[in-house]
Amino acid sequence: MRYSKLFGKTQKQISKEIESKSHQLLVKAGFVDQLAAGIYTWLPLGKKSLSKIDEIIRTQMNAIGGQEITMPILHPKKNWVQTGRWDSVDILFKLKSTHGAQYALGPTHEEVITPLVAKYINSYKDLPIFLYQIQTKLRDEPRAKSGVIRGREFGMKDMYSFHTDQKDLASFYQKVIDAYLNIFSQCGLEAKVTEASGGEFTKKYSHEFLVISPAGEDTVIYCPNCTFAQNKEISKFKATDPCPKCSGELAADKAIEVGNIFDLETKFSKDFNLTYLDKSGKKEYVYMGCYGLGDTRLVGAIVENNHDELGIIWPEKIAPYKLHLISISSRKIDQKIRENKNTSNLENPAKVAEDLYKDLTLNNIEVLFDDRKDTTPGQKLVDADLIGCPYKLVISQKSLSAGGFELTKRGQNESKIVTRDQLLETLL
Amino acid sequence: MRYSKLFGKTQKQISKEIESKSHQLLVKAGFVDQLAAGIYTWLPLGKKSLSKIDEIIRTQMNAIGGQEITMPILHPKKNWVQTGRWDSVDILFKLKSTHGAQYALGPTHEEVITPLVAKYINSYKDLPIFLYQIQTKLRDEPRAKSGVIRGREFGMKDMYSFHTDQKDLASFYQKVIDAYLNIFSQCGLEAKVTEASGGEFTKKYSHEFLVISPAGEDTVIYCPNCTFAQNKEISKFKATDPCPKCSGELAADKAIEVGNIFDLETKFSKDFNLTYLDKSGKKEYVYMGCYGLGDTRLVGAIVENNHDELGIIWPEKIAPYKLHLISISSRKIDQKIRENKNTSNLENPAKVAEDLYKDLTLNNIEVLFDDRKDTTPGQKLVDADLIGCPYKLVISQKSLSAGGFELTKRGQNESKIVTRDQLLETLL
Repeated sequence: MRYSKLFGKTQKQISKEIESKSHQLLVKAGFVDQLAAGIYTWLPLGKKSLSKIDEIIRTQMNAIGGQEITMPILHPKKNWVQTGRWDSVDILFKLKSTHGAQYALGPTHEEVITPLVAKYINSYKDLPIFLYQIQTKLRDEPRAKSGVIRGREFGMKDMYSFHTDQKDLASFYQKVIDAYLNIFSQCGLEAKVTEASGGEFTKKYSHEFLVISPAGEDTVIYCPNCTFAQNKEISKFKATDPCPKCSGELAADKAIEVGNIFDLETKFSKDFNLTYLDKSGKKEYVYMGCYGLGDTRLVGAIVENNHDELGIIWPEKIAPYKLHLISISSRKIDQKIRENKNTSNLENPAKVAEDLYKDLTLNNIEVLFDDRKDTTPGQKLVDADLIGCPYKLVISQKSLSAGGFELTKRGQNESKIVTRDQLLETLL
Repeated sequence: MRYSKLFGKTQKQISKEIESKSHQLLVKAGFVDQLAAGIYTWLPLGKKSLSKIDEIIRTQMNAIGGQEITMPILHPKKNWVQTGRWDSVDILFKLKSTHGAQYALGPTHEEVITPLVAKYINSYKDLPIFLYQIQTKLRDEPRAKSGVIRGREFGMKDMYSFHTDQKDLASFYQKVIDAYLNIFSQCGLEAKVTEASGGEFTKKYSHEFLVISPAGEDTVIYCPNCTFAQNKEISKFKATDPCPKCSGELAADKAIEVGNIFDLETKFSKDFNLTYLDKSGKKEYVYMGCYGLGDTRLVGAIVENNHDELGIIWPEKIAPYKLHLISISSRKIDQKIRENKNTSNLENPAKVAEDLYKDLTLNNIEVLFDDRKDTTPGQKLVDADLIGCPYKLVISQKSLSAGGFELTKRGQNESKIVTRDQLLETLL
């Protein structure tokens, strides 16, 4: 992509009301734009990163047998009345059609998927089933803050699983934990599997996936030496207490919740009469699990935990482009080339960059090429660090004299001169 | 995919209220499920076809320079007040937060994209820009009927273009027409580029893309011999009139609108003060075009125009799977194989099908394998025709004796016996 053509260039001035670091960086670097409190447009760079996260999620969900569907945003009021949540869920957006129908805007989809599955399931032979969607959720959040970390409108992968019994559910639940950790690790994040409140439906714990970060709204009490982790809200322990699992010393830190999974038992199955016939022909309620993962929030968490004073440092798999290509041409050389004198041993960096851009693109390497003509080299370098692609390649008369291009890995100080072939070897 | 595991199997009984043919077939074959009037869940088969359409659209939009973004569903009331459309658009869903904010649910996105672009555009050097999204739209339709062809919640690709002048807009507008025709042709549809009302903003025509179909809500007056086509609503002509372009005889037919493109001139630029500085430093309003294409509606139009009495006939690029694989085992052979007698020259069709399924999958061929054990061969064949994958492959003792597998192209009567290698040659 040519940066000159890209919509959503870096912003020098951003609103002073923007508090969180990830929000500042995502807006400054041109990934998102705020339409209203908690409501964002994903600009081309942000959309690219978000799509990469979605593909990682999709691959992991498919690998454990998930089938992708898309459920509606508009939910009939009666479905929410049937579970008692029309009145009890305070963040529910409620909507009335001028033609009389009343809807909830889906903040989660148990009210839709449970009656859906009830239509298609008859026998134990039809189970287990794992269904997921990556879809827009709407919640009437009183505090829409921290940018894409807590929005009124946001993206979420929600999966629902359906089982004949608790044991089968427990075994799948563990598979989801592993898949989630795999997703977060590909996003450059280390998430703690944290015991949290099971909500109103169960006395058991639910599990939150918490990423330690000063921008977090939760507090995790955890053991640095083992896997023990509890949300402060439910923990009987505090920092410096001995770990109940390994006797190490517990710590407490702010953390961002990037996922949350629940054993729903038969709560919704009972509400919607979701049953199956077992081997002996007896009617039994289906056991359900539900597994949430916020994809747009994940972008915020990644940036909170992957940046420096210059800008974002994207994990390779999430970066909108792998390489940020910049040519720095000196006026003197441009002049000489124009006057066509004494240039036999001089290459024009801008021309070399143009050729390399086409070359890399043909090799399927995702390149953001800053081809702007009216921008100073200094500004281009600042923008590259702010946008935060994993590699920056500078082509200048100096680098060409040294035999190649100057390659810097984002987040590292040292650069090295590489040839075209060495560059391809690094990037492919 | 093993059909035994697929969620959303064929339905024998469907609601008698379902009138349109595409709706009946999509529900019966397990592609969509109706949650409420005009509101649908896309089941795994439907989601697969829809994703293929979206990828075709994406490729074509990117090829003409489109950049993908995602804009919100929740639009602040003030944006719609600013264009005067808060009160004038009757299908607008209006929503009030318990925290005071008022929103429209986006039925289209001029109210969001125009102020967005105004933030980022300064000079003629920043233009033209082409932005699109594939996103959920919400409209408070009084008549939500014909299944996915007219929904209250539906998918749409909407693109918006921004230009320095009318000439540049006109040239891009033509590129979009070509890209749209390319998309529809890949979807197995022939669309007529039809002059239609320009709406409230302009005296010029807009252009609708109409697909002739008895299920259509529009009527197109067109010439079978040339490209003349007008929506009946604006046409001065009627069927049997002489064509004003070529003197042929005009025809009139019902048609489904699958796309609609508008020259918006400077209507929204003026509302949101979207200006640029021209070469002489003078402030000018930006010219805008807008280009809609309903992806979920397209699924309905494809099925309306591609089915027979047995079921759907998917165009190859839109089919959820390329091949529907069925093994028919005879009880006698099963018995002999089980008793392990006299089987030296007999192959077990079920075993051959299992091996072929794995073989084809490794060759990246999308196969729907009906591996159900408690379903009759007759039912499997009926389901295959209903679901409508482009190829059906039957493995039976009879086909194996004849040297291979029985391949039928959906919509054709003749089948032929093919070997594994001939099959791969056909499918790859």
